[in-house]
Amino acid sequence: MTPREIMVELGERSYPVVVGSGILRQVGNRLVGLGFVGRCALLTSERVGALYREPVVGALRAAGLDPVVVEIPDGEEHKSLAWLALVYDRLLEAGMERSTPLVALGGGVIGDLGGFAAATLLRGLPVVQVPTTLLAQVDAAIGGKTAVNHAQGKNLIGTFHQPRIVLADVDVLSTLPRRELLAGLAEVIKYGVIGDAGLFDAVERRLDAVLALDRELLTWIVATSVRQKADVVSRDERELTGLRATLNYGHTVGHAVEMLTDYRRFLHGEAIAIGMVAAARVSQALGSCDAGVVARIRGLLGRAGLPTELPADLDRAALALAMRGDKKSRGGKIRFVAVETIGHVRLVELTGEEIAARLS
Amino acid sequence: MTPREIMVELGERSYPVVVGSGILRQVGNRLVGLGFVGRCALLTSERVGALYREPVVGALRAAGLDPVVVEIPDGEEHKSLAWLALVYDRLLEAGMERSTPLVALGGGVIGDLGGFAAATLLRGLPVVQVPTTLLAQVDAAIGGKTAVNHAQGKNLIGTFHQPRIVLADVDVLSTLPRRELLAGLAEVIKYGVIGDAGLFDAVERRLDAVLALDRELLTWIVATSVRQKADVVSRDERELTGLRATLNYGHTVGHAVEMLTDYRRFLHGEAIAIGMVAAARVSQALGSCDAGVVARIRGLLGRAGLPTELPADLDRAALALAMRGDKKSRGGKIRFVAVETIGHVRLVELTGEEIAARLS
Repeated sequence: MTPREIMVELGERSYPVVVGSGILRQVGNRLVGLGFVGRCALLTSERVGALYREPVVGALRAAGLDPVVVEIPDGEEHKSLAWLALVYDRLLEAGMERSTPLVALGGGVIGDLGGFAAATLLRGLPVVQVPTTLLAQVDAAIGGKTAVNHAQGKNLIGTFHQPRIVLADVDVLSTLPRRELLAGLAEVIKYGVIGDAGLFDAVERRLDAVLALDRELLTWIVATSVRQKADVVSRDERELTGLRATLNYGHTVGHAVEMLTDYRRFLHGEAIAIGMVAAARVSQALGSCDAGVVARIRGLLGRAGLPTELPADLDRAALALAMRGDKKSRGGKIRFVAVETIGHVRLVELTGEEIAARLS
Repeated sequence: MTPREIMVELGERSYPVVVGSGILRQVGNRLVGLGFVGRCALLTSERVGALYREPVVGALRAAGLDPVVVEIPDGEEHKSLAWLALVYDRLLEAGMERSTPLVALGGGVIGDLGGFAAATLLRGLPVVQVPTTLLAQVDAAIGGKTAVNHAQGKNLIGTFHQPRIVLADVDVLSTLPRRELLAGLAEVIKYGVIGDAGLFDAVERRLDAVLALDRELLTWIVATSVRQKADVVSRDERELTGLRATLNYGHTVGHAVEMLTDYRRFLHGEAIAIGMVAAARVSQALGSCDAGVVARIRGLLGRAGLPTELPADLDRAALALAMRGDKKSRGGKIRFVAVETIGHVRLVELTGEEIAARLS
């Protein structure tokens, strides 16, 4: 099975996303192929490190590279300024230069934190993203968004820094906890809703094979999701035209739910699943789509074992307030992604209160 | 006296640098001219704030803007991750959105820290640089370099984030401590050496008028320096071709001197003055220039009251080591800026040891 390569077209800063089986073993040769020699840094988390540190370090060494490993504990709470400072310390101690690449091996926390560290150390190190969760493979690792969290909200501190290459090995999904796999599937379903009815159909029809980790199917699903993200990023890298904003379908409510539950009760993808159903209902209330579309979205997410309903204990006024704090809001207005049909969405400017009032 | 406007040409991200007398009063109208309304943030230091906070806030309010002021103590030690975190807190408390501009009113510390905060908050706020030192007016405020310091070295954490406009009011130089004015003059003389013999000549001939703060002459000197920096930045924004690296003339040794004296003994410009003389001597030892060029550079800096000799207590081995840690070094090699004649320099790849051995 040959890997699929999708280019994120950004002129001189274009880069490939390689999706397939056995990609992890290629990381050393891929770096050498990009012209890197000598020292490199490998940032990973304790859990991912325990599973994949050895093969990745081995692949880097076999290609003649000299990796220094920096490991941080797992968990969203480590995507912070405090842990960033520790990563800076470790990287500087390791003698990083401006041409030394940083390999971020892990899920969204590692990709975002590692990307931000690379963006800001010595005014920019090259970064190689090696996402190990389905969510990171189809979303976080592509597009150059990097961030750490702030007490006032998620990803409030960050920048844009495109990777030099993204290596997505679907084999590693076999060691991913089931709950995280499903959470990642929520973002795949999102791509279906916002721009690819065929992808949505495929997940609907072959859900069992997806959950059984059929490698060929997973490669197709990841590559198809990546292609859509790559296309959007190529056309609107910095969220200026509104196109990239369509990727936030389900995220306005989802982010608010995550924040109000202290990022503890739900995984990101779970909160987004809730947000997608909520956004579909708001879309129906706005006259943008019919009940059948809402039912189909809710049905697939439910079959995939994802939560679809707002927690009953969540205060609606607090939800409206939390949505208003979204970093994409402008003058208090939120660019809300409304569903039209499976495969088509549009942007509507709404306040947090207007959204909350239509959540039913 | 009409102000001079120099464009930094960077395609869609081009911006003007306005140099002249009475510019501070225009800050509100300039922001409105860029399309900003409502909330804005003003970051300044205690000392600059005491002098100029009121007129700037007044100008912003008069133009219909709603400034929130964030003040930090003066001094390089506040260009740190810890103070950055505090600035993030204050800005988020003030309800900054991605379209809210940050005005950085102050010297290099404020410009660098404010620029970095703006670059990284909500993945990028627009920043307006209002430099109040000669050094910041001719250098730090132009070109988009932003940074904070790290225990292991100056400016090790940073990114590129171009301002929307730079407003350089030469009137504020009248309240600048004499020592800081002279330190800024070191960078002006640097522009003369690296690319403008006419600028060097003018400072040599009219040094008394410069030191008497002749407004017309200062405006010409600042604008001429800015034009050179703008030209270099336009052609090599991210230090890729080596052109921008020529701006580092005097900085390889100068940075090392600053670091080894804990950033306490010398102002940046003073260390650069020492570094320029040292670099001229190394250039002579390399056969790149003759003794007359070295004498002319040393003579002008000395007449301007700037230090020109390496401190006798500075260990040469430590100096070599400190230079090796320069963030622009690649594989241990430093791109050293060697003088050919007044107005012409070239890049030479040298190790820290090779430079130290030629310091005489």
